[in-house]
Amino acid sequence: MTQKWVYLFKEGSAKQKSLLGGKGANLAEMTNIGLPVPPGLTVTTEACTEFYKQGKKLTDEIIAQIKENLQLLEEQTGKKFGDESNPLLVSVRSGAAISMPGMMDTILNLGLNDISVEGIAKKSNNERFAYDSYRRFIQMFGDVVLSVPKYKFDYALEDIKEKNNYKSDTELTTDDLKGLVKEFKKIYKEETNSDFPQNPETQLLMAVEAVFRSWNNARAITYRNLYEISHDIGTAVNVQSMVFGNMGDTSGTGVAFTRNPSTGEKKVFGEFLMNAQGEDVVAGIRTPLTIDKLQDIMPEIYDQFMDIAHNLEQHYRDMQDIEFTIEQGKLFMLQTRSGKRTAEAALRAAVEMVGENLITKEEAVMRVEPKSLDQLLHPRFDPTEIKKSTPIAKGLPASPGAATGKIYFTAEDAAMATERGEATILVRKETSPEDIEGMTKARGILTSRGGMTSHAAVVARGMGKCCVAGCESVYVDEIQKIMSVGNIKLTEGDYISLDGSTGNVYEGSIKTVEPNISGNFGQLMEWADEFRKLGIRTNADTPKDASISVKFGAEGIGLCRTEHMFFDEERIFSVRKMIVSDSVVQREKALAEILPMQKNDFKGLFKVMGIKPVTIRLLDPPLHEFIPHDEEDIIELSEDMHMPISKLKEIIVSLQEFNPMLGHRGCRLAITYPEIARMQTRAIIEAAIEVSVEENINIVPEIMIPLVGVKEEIDILRKLVIETAENVKTEKNSNLKYEVGTMMEIPRACLVSDEIAEFADFYSFGTNDLTQMTYGYSRDDAGKFISSYRELGILENDPFQSIDQIGVGKMVDIAVKLGRKVKPHMHMGVCGEHGGDPASIDFFHRVGLDYVSCSPFRVPVARLAAAQAAIRNKDQSK
Amino acid sequence: MTQKWVYLFKEGSAKQKSLLGGKGANLAEMTNIGLPVPPGLTVTTEACTEFYKQGKKLTDEIIAQIKENLQLLEEQTGKKFGDESNPLLVSVRSGAAISMPGMMDTILNLGLNDISVEGIAKKSNNERFAYDSYRRFIQMFGDVVLSVPKYKFDYALEDIKEKNNYKSDTELTTDDLKGLVKEFKKIYKEETNSDFPQNPETQLLMAVEAVFRSWNNARAITYRNLYEISHDIGTAVNVQSMVFGNMGDTSGTGVAFTRNPSTGEKKVFGEFLMNAQGEDVVAGIRTPLTIDKLQDIMPEIYDQFMDIAHNLEQHYRDMQDIEFTIEQGKLFMLQTRSGKRTAEAALRAAVEMVGENLITKEEAVMRVEPKSLDQLLHPRFDPTEIKKSTPIAKGLPASPGAATGKIYFTAEDAAMATERGEATILVRKETSPEDIEGMTKARGILTSRGGMTSHAAVVARGMGKCCVAGCESVYVDEIQKIMSVGNIKLTEGDYISLDGSTGNVYEGSIKTVEPNISGNFGQLMEWADEFRKLGIRTNADTPKDASISVKFGAEGIGLCRTEHMFFDEERIFSVRKMIVSDSVVQREKALAEILPMQKNDFKGLFKVMGIKPVTIRLLDPPLHEFIPHDEEDIIELSEDMHMPISKLKEIIVSLQEFNPMLGHRGCRLAITYPEIARMQTRAIIEAAIEVSVEENINIVPEIMIPLVGVKEEIDILRKLVIETAENVKTEKNSNLKYEVGTMMEIPRACLVSDEIAEFADFYSFGTNDLTQMTYGYSRDDAGKFISSYRELGILENDPFQSIDQIGVGKMVDIAVKLGRKVKPHMHMGVCGEHGGDPASIDFFHRVGLDYVSCSPFRVPVARLAAAQAAIRNKDQSK
Repeated sequence: MTQKWVYLFKEGSAKQKSLLGGKGANLAEMTNIGLPVPPGLTVTTEACTEFYKQGKKLTDEIIAQIKENLQLLEEQTGKKFGDESNPLLVSVRSGAAISMPGMMDTILNLGLNDISVEGIAKKSNNERFAYDSYRRFIQMFGDVVLSVPKYKFDYALEDIKEKNNYKSDTELTTDDLKGLVKEFKKIYKEETNSDFPQNPETQLLMAVEAVFRSWNNARAITYRNLYEISHDIGTAVNVQSMVFGNMGDTSGTGVAFTRNPSTGEKKVFGEFLMNAQGEDVVAGIRTPLTIDKLQDIMPEIYDQFMDIAHNLEQHYRDMQDIEFTIEQGKLFMLQTRSGKRTAEAALRAAVEMVGENLITKEEAVMRVEPKSLDQLLHPRFDPTEIKKSTPIAKGLPASPGAATGKIYFTAEDAAMATERGEATILVRKETSPEDIEGMTKARGILTSRGGMTSHAAVVARGMGKCCVAGCESVYVDEIQKIMSVGNIKLTEGDYISLDGSTGNVYEGSIKTVEPNISGNFGQLMEWADEFRKLGIRTNADTPKDASISVKFGAEGIGLCRTEHMFFDEERIFSVRKMIVSDSVVQREKALAEILPMQKNDFKGLFKVMGIKPVTIRLLDPPLHEFIPHDEEDIIELSEDMHMPISKLKEIIVSLQEFNPMLGHRGCRLAITYPEIARMQTRAIIEAAIEVSVEENINIVPEIMIPLVGVKEEIDILRKLVIETAENVKTEKNSNLKYEVGTMMEIPRACLVSDEIAEFADFYSFGTNDLTQMTYGYSRDDAGKFISSYRELGILENDPFQSIDQIGVGKMVDIAVKLGRKVKPHMHMGVCGEHGGDPASIDFFHRVGLDYVSCSPFRVPVARLAAAQAAIRNKDQSK
Repeated sequence: MTQKWVYLFKEGSAKQKSLLGGKGANLAEMTNIGLPVPPGLTVTTEACTEFYKQGKKLTDEIIAQIKENLQLLEEQTGKKFGDESNPLLVSVRSGAAISMPGMMDTILNLGLNDISVEGIAKKSNNERFAYDSYRRFIQMFGDVVLSVPKYKFDYALEDIKEKNNYKSDTELTTDDLKGLVKEFKKIYKEETNSDFPQNPETQLLMAVEAVFRSWNNARAITYRNLYEISHDIGTAVNVQSMVFGNMGDTSGTGVAFTRNPSTGEKKVFGEFLMNAQGEDVVAGIRTPLTIDKLQDIMPEIYDQFMDIAHNLEQHYRDMQDIEFTIEQGKLFMLQTRSGKRTAEAALRAAVEMVGENLITKEEAVMRVEPKSLDQLLHPRFDPTEIKKSTPIAKGLPASPGAATGKIYFTAEDAAMATERGEATILVRKETSPEDIEGMTKARGILTSRGGMTSHAAVVARGMGKCCVAGCESVYVDEIQKIMSVGNIKLTEGDYISLDGSTGNVYEGSIKTVEPNISGNFGQLMEWADEFRKLGIRTNADTPKDASISVKFGAEGIGLCRTEHMFFDEERIFSVRKMIVSDSVVQREKALAEILPMQKNDFKGLFKVMGIKPVTIRLLDPPLHEFIPHDEEDIIELSEDMHMPISKLKEIIVSLQEFNPMLGHRGCRLAITYPEIARMQTRAIIEAAIEVSVEENINIVPEIMIPLVGVKEEIDILRKLVIETAENVKTEKNSNLKYEVGTMMEIPRACLVSDEIAEFADFYSFGTNDLTQMTYGYSRDDAGKFISSYRELGILENDPFQSIDQIGVGKMVDIAVKLGRKVKPHMHMGVCGEHGGDPASIDFFHRVGLDYVSCSPFRVPVARLAAAQAAIRNKDQSK
């Protein structure tokens, strides 16, 4: 049996999106529920794939089917292609399964030639209209199908207007237009070396090929890369008999949404123009009227349209975005699709549709894009102000929100300026842990280097603070205190504005508006919580972050990084003494100074979290990150420690590493400096005991050992932690319970997870490091090639943002399976950046983790994404 | 049934080594083949394991069996423990399955007490002998079993000698010795709070426990870590009735090898002393006689001994190391074991034993330790000179061989001094690719930092040059041009000597002797080649290295690193221009300068290798490694390129990376700078075509794309290589064949090997990087903790030296299996450092690779190891 490559609209349905494209499937659906749709046909996406398989050629079979169906279309409409009295004209439009701008522009009026133009003239009783349509068609066809430069046609048009001293196109006479048709055909021939095709079938086949070719034009490829759409699915072509909104005063055209796409309000929202074509509405030359005005002009059409709009929403059970045309008093529907909407509108519509019994709670949960919630949780630029601004640079949208302030180039300067009451933006090549205080105080952070998981990005997301990272077109000179981009030079104190949701950087100050989380938000979250199976924890190091995350619905802390606690100004001195100590005694003395501070940190966290679980990771980063670099600091330290400067510098140099990410960090520190792990364990256990007593609750802290790769590491450290903890419990006469687990972030650990599991009460997957090592990409350096990789289609996504399911994911899967073989009920979570990414969350749900942990501002995103994962995978599971 | 914990010698055999220990098993074997062995019993290694299981206690069952067997021993010998006329005395010795110094010293004369001492006096008719033995026994027992400080006994002895003004121990009278026994018992009681045990059974049980405890003393643990022996196998205890070599002129004792352990010559080689105990031979106080002198003294005993020696070698089919004692004219065998030998001796003995039909060729191949061949391939220190020297420091034995020369602290200084005719040693903190020339010219290399796979180590091994790396006790100041270690300060031009096989560093100059590869070497290699299944290739970048490796038997080049070719003084300038170019045109111009040089490099290699396969890896390291750091070089470059210094410095900074190992390197360079890969491909293909024509052969170059992690990388680059290669072939009218493959070194690539295989003609596993990323250990930095890790038993081996079979190995296994699923016959090899490590080679054989590739001087090691792997795994395979 031969394959069916072409479908009449009446043969298809909305279910066939992947075959007919979104547009084609919806046209078919509307046709079949009896709405007034101009008849047409769809060439399938499979024909597109076949076209490419044949080396960009339509097969004979496809051509034959197009011709056959064209005949059926002629029968349906009672018109004939190229006819001199009642010719069939069609529009040709691309339409992929996923809505995708960037492909071929529409071709209207296909079927016009030297004969049928006369037929149209007769039929419309308007010769000028016919020739105007014809010259437009030649230009459109030449431009779109054969890349004849548009300006050549435009120049010819301008010539005639100048010669006759016309101000506007409407002054062109029928004869002018007839002359223009000749001129356009001449241009066409000069540019393409062939005559303008007079056979409408030839026109159509050429147009179909052009649509298929446009699937792989640069814009379309870029778009697919950007939105993670497969390059293999192809586009369909829709061929639809023309209706004209510009056939006089009883004609018109418009677009409408069944609900307000900005607010979600349940009220048809649309615009239309009388005596106009679709392009005119979009182009903005004439100001369209709001849809309610149609009631005054054509009340019956208005009622009919309102009915159709209501029915379409009821039929599709979602807010629709509709295009319509009125031809000489008759209403035609040209398109319907699910309407794009803001996060706010999506929320409101979803919640209200449940109230209207239109959709189920599960459907409502599926209707809101989790990532879009970010918009609702952070300050945004005032929408009217931002429309007037043009960005001067674009970096990575590292942490969402908007911020305006004066630029400062060092963390100290930014902190001081903030204390003076200024709004500040910290601008750095990159940030380091020493900059924490300045980062906390600035409104936003801009870096010229680093990727989505660079220090600046990770810390900013943790703080819920706006950050644009890796903005490579900006040159930052921290010594001279200037930043430059193109010809623009900005110095300390100048204003800039950052949009962390888009990566845009603006010169000057732009007003921001605060987030307003409405009741619909809470309602949707409640439903999400009903469906999700994954627990949601947060990555938080401070009581402040912990409080925010609890407000957002976090059920525990999945990762408390203790190193941030070491950078506090009061402590860093003791920390440094500890590190450069060349004896255990000296080190223990320095650690004893830090102990009470660490204990208070943990008490603060435990007080906020109550009995919710808190996972605390022992010290992780390479020690040299804590080491002083300023001469001044070095001198101070050397004096306090009675250590010669030369010796101190020798120690500092000896701590440097070529590849610190692969160096002396994580549990490797705890092995070589067990006294650090002992101090931290003591601080955790003492804090947990004290808060348990004070609040009369039972806290069960989870102590996490980072960077384990070899079972002996966790064996030794687990013993050390337990020994210390039991000593503290004996001292305090407490029967506190606690758990000791590990961060799974070394590829080897995943491969030998059955060995590691013996010594772990829980796993938390550190997918940042795991991605880093599985790919061999340094988070700090990969920015140099990851963007080219995405442009070239080598990487569909940044693997640090969305987990690589087939590579890194396989690693996680292996680890979960091997671990559960040994301990079927061990709790396992993920605390990498991926814990807040919806696609990753879907994966973690499928792989069987117990929870995800993400930065506080991502908690609502994660709750929703987890619910969607549960709903989406319901059939597969159990 | 109760377990048998104790065996009489006559109950065991040589096959029971793991149960009875090596010594016990051999004593049993000798007993059963009718040799004169003093009767005894062995407490098994399982009893040792049980001892630890019970919290370091002998179970009642074990104690009961010891006592039972003791009774049988009394019956066998006709003597009785503690008897006043014919007492049984025994020696107690430890004996693990693998010979292991560091455990308990021997206890002799156990069974002596206040009664039996009289029995011995009567029986030997020598009261002085009896009391001398008794006081020695108390000291030995106190020291070894209960850690009574030895010096306390020594002081007491000295006191008596001083009081009586004796010069030597032989002047002590029987009464003195009786007094000393009393004194020693007093010391024993003071130190242990208990009386010296008079019951011989108690003595024995205490001694057995002491042996078991000694299994876990610090020295023994260190030894096991060093030689990779499991800590779980335990030791046996041998209890043997005493015979005395010091019972007068017809008594004596000695040791002998059945062949010469230094040369392998087939002639019994031994030494003995009359009227002496075993310790006297070893201690070196009296000079022993050579074994042939025994013929003059006791001809019958001599003949009997020679017979036994011959029979033992025939029985064990290996060279034996034998201990014997003559007691009053009667010969006793106390021990036999496989004799330790030099590599030279091992080779000669193995080859000659095949000639004697004593062993098979397979056995001969198994008899030589592959790693020991290194000794034969490099210069060594003159054995007599080295005996007189004490090392001043010890680093890692990074590249074998010995070297003496004047020290220089920069590569340039070393190169210049060499050109002046001096023998030089390059001393650096660490080396970098810029030092290549100096490294080539120096006799040896010493670094104070870096591990076994640091730059210095890898490059030196590649060159077959002596190198001691990571010698942390040496402080190197390259600016001041001094090195210091302890109180020794050496400056430029001072002599040092390095032993790259041991890591020892000596002050001053020591004579070296050149390697002498005898015919036995070639013979054994020939046999090895008969058995091995793995091909052996080499890692070589230069014609010189390639020639050496072919001489050593390499069958191809498994890895030619092209980056070393870029550092050549003449080229580095062009290379730098290429890197800092900010336009493709400029970069291509610089590359055009490099092309002819690269082509000549490859022609040189192809000429040496002929039709043997040559795998050439495209440029791998991060570009910044090539960048100038000296102000002078930067100025020169900026002038030549007409580029402002500030701009050049900006580019240099922008190339820096935080973690270069995980950065912009490998195929990531080829993706972002495709013109580099195109130039290299052109150079390879042109060279292959030209040499094929000149030599009238068909060269099939293998082009290897490094660091692939994602299938799109190899897809794109494979196309680029093929396109370039086909262009060159068309230009040159050639039909050259070539292959395009990838280096498997990224964990992700292994996990998705089925995807990668589609685009690869071959795989070469880069196990250095694979280990680096699977463990998350930087080769450059891991030295900081790997040594602690080995001491703590966290790592049994340095995973960069011997492949981690369960983690990294699983990764290789996954990759091989997934790859072969797609392409069952794809050839796969390994080119990491592990390719020259025998244990790793065994693994690669089992996992089904086709070849290993190692540095030229490792080729013979690899040939032998591959043969052993094939023999060892013969039963398992097929």
